[in-house]
Amino acid sequence: TNFFAPYGVVPNFLLNNKVHCIPMVIEESSVVAASAKAAKFWLERGGFKAEVVSTTKVGQVHFIWNGNSEQLFNFFEESKAELIESISPLVINMNKRGGGLLSLEIKDCSDLEEGYYQLHGEFETCDAMGANFINSVLEAIGKKWQELVMTNLKFEQAQRDIQIVMCILSNYTPNCLVKAWVECDVSELEDAGLGMSAEDFAHKFSRAVRIARKDVNRAVTHNKGIFNGIDAVVLATGNDFRAIEACGHAYASRDGQYRSLSNCIIENGKFKFELEIPLALGTVGGLTSLHPMSKISLDMLGMPNAKELMMITAAIGLAQNFGAVRSLVTTGIQKGHMKMHLTNILAELKANVDEAKQIETYFSDKAISVSGVKDYLKKLRESVSPKSI
Amino acid sequence: TNFFAPYGVVPNFLLNNKVHCIPMVIEESSVVAASAKAAKFWLERGGFKAEVVSTTKVGQVHFIWNGNSEQLFNFFEESKAELIESISPLVINMNKRGGGLLSLEIKDCSDLEEGYYQLHGEFETCDAMGANFINSVLEAIGKKWQELVMTNLKFEQAQRDIQIVMCILSNYTPNCLVKAWVECDVSELEDAGLGMSAEDFAHKFSRAVRIARKDVNRAVTHNKGIFNGIDAVVLATGNDFRAIEACGHAYASRDGQYRSLSNCIIENGKFKFELEIPLALGTVGGLTSLHPMSKISLDMLGMPNAKELMMITAAIGLAQNFGAVRSLVTTGIQKGHMKMHLTNILAELKANVDEAKQIETYFSDKAISVSGVKDYLKKLRESVSPKSI
Repeated sequence: TNFFAPYGVVPNFLLNNKVHCIPMVIEESSVVAASAKAAKFWLERGGFKAEVVSTTKVGQVHFIWNGNSEQLFNFFEESKAELIESISPLVINMNKRGGGLLSLEIKDCSDLEEGYYQLHGEFETCDAMGANFINSVLEAIGKKWQELVMTNLKFEQAQRDIQIVMCILSNYTPNCLVKAWVECDVSELEDAGLGMSAEDFAHKFSRAVRIARKDVNRAVTHNKGIFNGIDAVVLATGNDFRAIEACGHAYASRDGQYRSLSNCIIENGKFKFELEIPLALGTVGGLTSLHPMSKISLDMLGMPNAKELMMITAAIGLAQNFGAVRSLVTTGIQKGHMKMHLTNILAELKANVDEAKQIETYFSDKAISVSGVKDYLKKLRESVSPKSI
Repeated sequence: TNFFAPYGVVPNFLLNNKVHCIPMVIEESSVVAASAKAAKFWLERGGFKAEVVSTTKVGQVHFIWNGNSEQLFNFFEESKAELIESISPLVINMNKRGGGLLSLEIKDCSDLEEGYYQLHGEFETCDAMGANFINSVLEAIGKKWQELVMTNLKFEQAQRDIQIVMCILSNYTPNCLVKAWVECDVSELEDAGLGMSAEDFAHKFSRAVRIARKDVNRAVTHNKGIFNGIDAVVLATGNDFRAIEACGHAYASRDGQYRSLSNCIIENGKFKFELEIPLALGTVGGLTSLHPMSKISLDMLGMPNAKELMMITAAIGLAQNFGAVRSLVTTGIQKGHMKMHLTNILAELKANVDEAKQIETYFSDKAISVSGVKDYLKKLRESVSPKSI
């Protein structure tokens, strides 16, 4: 059987001077609403910009070997051509598409674990996410490398003993990176909905982002908001959100402190809000073409290649983040949230259309809670019952 | 419209001496298969154990104030009762259920940003995830606190100037923590499928986990595997996987180095594999009771409370992790993966039943790639065509 999740669309999303309709799969309706609101805000202010910084993916053969590491490094250099030759049947098609194994190096990691080394491969997988490709290549390299070491007559008997611990891609891809940003004059931020001047808003907004760069409690929630947008597109296009999440959050902690992935700069009267995030996405292979709704999503996006999807996804993450921080520093997050939430509460309490209308009016200027709505609905029903007797 | 994702069930999952059927929503069929295999393996070895360490959630009122911080701290202590009293209508129902605001403190964060302070609240939200509750309470506290500071006659005029930057829960909940583990004698690990002795397997397995505790490339992928299991249950029960992901990965980097969330210990002939992870989950409110399939999932799990769901979810994360690492250090990840993937490739290439059977036989001992399968299918079809003329 299947689980279902709401499929929404954000219209009028201006990115790199082109208008997109962006499919989002997410159970929180307020996320789609916030993205749409941010899209509209920036549509009138030059839209979103994005660029792909790099597209390299990585993987490792992890192994244990005891002996003189210089000898091992030399043997690796001697064997490198043979190792790479041995995987040629596996990479021929990827090579034709302009990708493949970019480099293969040996790393001494014996400071982490006794006798621990890695063969570290860099890969270009073009429009595929590439997990199966990378894993197949690494397993073949691991097998060949074990064979070469075990039969190398220049090694002493004990040195021919090698343990391949595992061969596996890494979901940590800091060099598969995309940047997205919005930018305008501070004065252009003027908007009736802000409840404050453009100048005050710009500074309060950038302060909220600075706090998220420094305080872990805030950073986690701030980045969670970015992924609200990102995962919705990742899901809609048949990509793997666990890979995207794991990589992005590890990237957020790369300097030893977990920080906001986005950044806000006010300089020379210009407001710039930017996001830099690794996104190893694919638009061919995997589920992308197997799931009927991924096909619809990719079609809606104009059949993007992987780089275009990286830019779209980063931009929606930034839009979502802009919307959330904007709400937080102006009206507060609960106003919009609870309006949406009220609809859910009414559904749960099985309120009819008349009751819903009266409840919405009553709670328009009050704090919304399940128990508050329940009590009010009870009162409504009690006041109605006598008449119907 | 709705997006659909496969809904699978892992049977015979022994946790704390009780057998569960665990619902999983995930597009990767190999994840459900791996969890089921791990469940079976541990069913015969005492099963999974889990315990909830803590259930505290947090949130902050972030504000800017300039003046003598001692004066501010004193004023906070004087005002605390009034602040807490002011939110009593909002917490009355949560108090009845045994939860509410546990503590409220003021924190000087001016080392991070000039004049930056927090009111830091700790919350118990019982069986609810509690985001709306916490946010509503924090917004009310923020509003009251602003009012108190602005009207405090003991402050100089300039000190009455306070900026509430934002009021918001934190998704970082290191004190909403659960532990899950499996344990047996090393000799009990004996299994025909391992292709090595129980002793060798135990040591190779624990080495792979040690590597994931030290190498970021491996740690990210390792934890990604844990979340493959966790998110599938989180989705199936109507919880928010972005919150769970953001918190878990930030927790993985809490000592300044991003590490594996699981750990493996071999001591006195005992093999123990354990996972410690913060999981702020709910079984009431939010989507849990609104989504018809979340209701089915919770029903299948025997209507757990939040603590029970925390234990179930952590245990499935550990099971998934055990399955992935077991594959990596024995047959390699691709064998199982590609067998599943072949089914997808055959669907994509629209192979009929006869063709599928021939292809499965042919590739049973060969590396599987889309192009390889495509070529072989082409050959099959060419060899058939002439006969049908």
